[in-house]
Amino acid sequence: MAVRGHPALRLVLRQTLRGYGGDTQKIRQFSGVGTSLVYEEYGDPQKVVVQRETNIPGLKEDQVLVRMLAAPVNPADINTIQGVYAVKPQLPSVPGNEGVGEVLEVGKNVESELQPGDRVIPRVNALGTWQTHALAASSDVIKIPSGVDLVTAATIAVNPSTAYRMLKDFVPVKRGDTVIQNGANSAVGQAVIQIAAALGMKTVNVVRDRTSIRELKEHLTGLGATVVVTEAELRKSEEVKALPPPRLALNCVSGRSGTEILRQLTPQGVMVTYGGMSRQPVTAPVGALIFNDVTLRGFWMTRWNKEHFSHPERLHMLDELFQLAQGGQLRPPDHTLVPFSNFQEALKNAMPSEGMLGKKQILIF
Amino acid sequence: MAVRGHPALRLVLRQTLRGYGGDTQKIRQFSGVGTSLVYEEYGDPQKVVVQRETNIPGLKEDQVLVRMLAAPVNPADINTIQGVYAVKPQLPSVPGNEGVGEVLEVGKNVESELQPGDRVIPRVNALGTWQTHALAASSDVIKIPSGVDLVTAATIAVNPSTAYRMLKDFVPVKRGDTVIQNGANSAVGQAVIQIAAALGMKTVNVVRDRTSIRELKEHLTGLGATVVVTEAELRKSEEVKALPPPRLALNCVSGRSGTEILRQLTPQGVMVTYGGMSRQPVTAPVGALIFNDVTLRGFWMTRWNKEHFSHPERLHMLDELFQLAQGGQLRPPDHTLVPFSNFQEALKNAMPSEGMLGKKQILIF
Repeated sequence: MAVRGHPALRLVLRQTLRGYGGDTQKIRQFSGVGTSLVYEEYGDPQKVVVQRETNIPGLKEDQVLVRMLAAPVNPADINTIQGVYAVKPQLPSVPGNEGVGEVLEVGKNVESELQPGDRVIPRVNALGTWQTHALAASSDVIKIPSGVDLVTAATIAVNPSTAYRMLKDFVPVKRGDTVIQNGANSAVGQAVIQIAAALGMKTVNVVRDRTSIRELKEHLTGLGATVVVTEAELRKSEEVKALPPPRLALNCVSGRSGTEILRQLTPQGVMVTYGGMSRQPVTAPVGALIFNDVTLRGFWMTRWNKEHFSHPERLHMLDELFQLAQGGQLRPPDHTLVPFSNFQEALKNAMPSEGMLGKKQILIF
Repeated sequence: MAVRGHPALRLVLRQTLRGYGGDTQKIRQFSGVGTSLVYEEYGDPQKVVVQRETNIPGLKEDQVLVRMLAAPVNPADINTIQGVYAVKPQLPSVPGNEGVGEVLEVGKNVESELQPGDRVIPRVNALGTWQTHALAASSDVIKIPSGVDLVTAATIAVNPSTAYRMLKDFVPVKRGDTVIQNGANSAVGQAVIQIAAALGMKTVNVVRDRTSIRELKEHLTGLGATVVVTEAELRKSEEVKALPPPRLALNCVSGRSGTEILRQLTPQGVMVTYGGMSRQPVTAPVGALIFNDVTLRGFWMTRWNKEHFSHPERLHMLDELFQLAQGGQLRPPDHTLVPFSNFQEALKNAMPSEGMLGKKQILIF
């Protein structure tokens, strides 16, 4: 099987298969009742994902019928289809980890919770959002406030939520503190910049050098980045030295880039790894651990969601993120809207080119 | 300057000099009042350490006069003299981080705390124990119980204390839990085996292969080790697989060996690094951090002691360790007693040979 897709997740595959739970899992999915995308074997998304019509069974008492409105194509979706992600659904499976839908019908027992017209997002990952209609247990969806734009609603659960949790859960940060991150132009990285700015925090943003570096720096600065530097500029940057040393480093690159941001941490600082785009492991100097007392942690939104399935903090986080979005402090990612019937085009454009991802592909139903 | 000594600490040197506080520090030392060893420049211990007579000033009201009885030559002592340790004392300096002494005279203000005849150990590292007599602030020494044998008293503060803290401070371990460690035959490693056994914990002990591997396994098993395996045997060992997976890994080797014990951890497990004998950094697969949710920490006894200078937990720990020693559950390391005047011999024998350390050299006054 050719392994393609987002390099961060391809790496993770190999490591996962070496012992971090690569078994095929029975995952609860929405029941499709209209047109679904589906794959019956792992492989190249453009080859294995097909469209299928499904019958409409009767609505059960604890279910709702949802019409999907928008769903993004994320790297984790691609890698799940490729069979190279830590989550391996039992096949056949409907892809799609996030998205927003509208409630059409409500089962008898859940009429007090949800109404036709409510907008909902999945409560956990891997429920299968790439289908026109779905029957879902009411407990598997979360009602979101009205007035949130479609793209924000469809993309809030993975990347901004990851950024939010990493900024909140690892060190007690406060206004004026610095956070450093690599891969700062990733979807999570851009959310980090904006959420940190809204929290009054300063950000040191490390990106790979490229021909369009000037435009990228301007773009990230426009989002609220305090400093944007290339990997080569990081150590020498006077702007970085002028800031309070960071207590928190967010790492989606690993390898040398991860080590470099680790070195910037203040004693007792924490580096949180959430990706491995360099395809290299995380490497820490012995002295950083022993003498600088840094801590290395990892973060996986999927686990957090499972562990906080019905925890009030889940809703609190979404509320805060939606408020930031409505206040213009958290913009949706650069994206292209693709009609559902053109899903092949979306899958093609969601594949990274030369290790870089283009605009977020968002399926519109 | 030729950099020799314990490879774990030589590595740390290079990393330290890259930004973890390699500056020369003004460190409080005991005032020598008899015969002291002293070095005026960093370098080869056998060349730079010399013997010097010092005058006896008057005893101040808050001081005690201590006659040293025994002091070990530890790898950190060697590396401090070489100038390659994270602590770089201002020169000239009296070496020696631990040891036991007897109180000879007591200043007027501290008569209620200490009596002539009491045995004491330094409260923090780097006070300078390689001298026959020392004037010390009473707050810089800790009175130990009577009846503790000399070698145990002289060697309790560094290695067994390190083992004790790493077993207690990072994960809430309980009877029946497994801890895995590499460098299991180091002084700390042997203390880990014995303290863990006393706590009812199982130990997986990884050692390098060697011609005398059979004798080493017997020796460590005799100390209470549950399983002893070479690095090559670890992955395949049925004995290891039969144990509950460890929640705690203790790493003094780093490099590949550190990664191997990290892979054995249960989800949410913690690896604590306290050395880098392989001269390689600590390397963690991205998937171990993200999907297995392991945490990487570091431990440095010197920092703990500073942070717990007069904390009751310090005395509680020493009490427990002395009790284990007196009950035969914590044996002193294999050692050679060397008269103080033969210090050159002790320094020579304390240098590692082919990366391995011989018997602990203990200066007797």
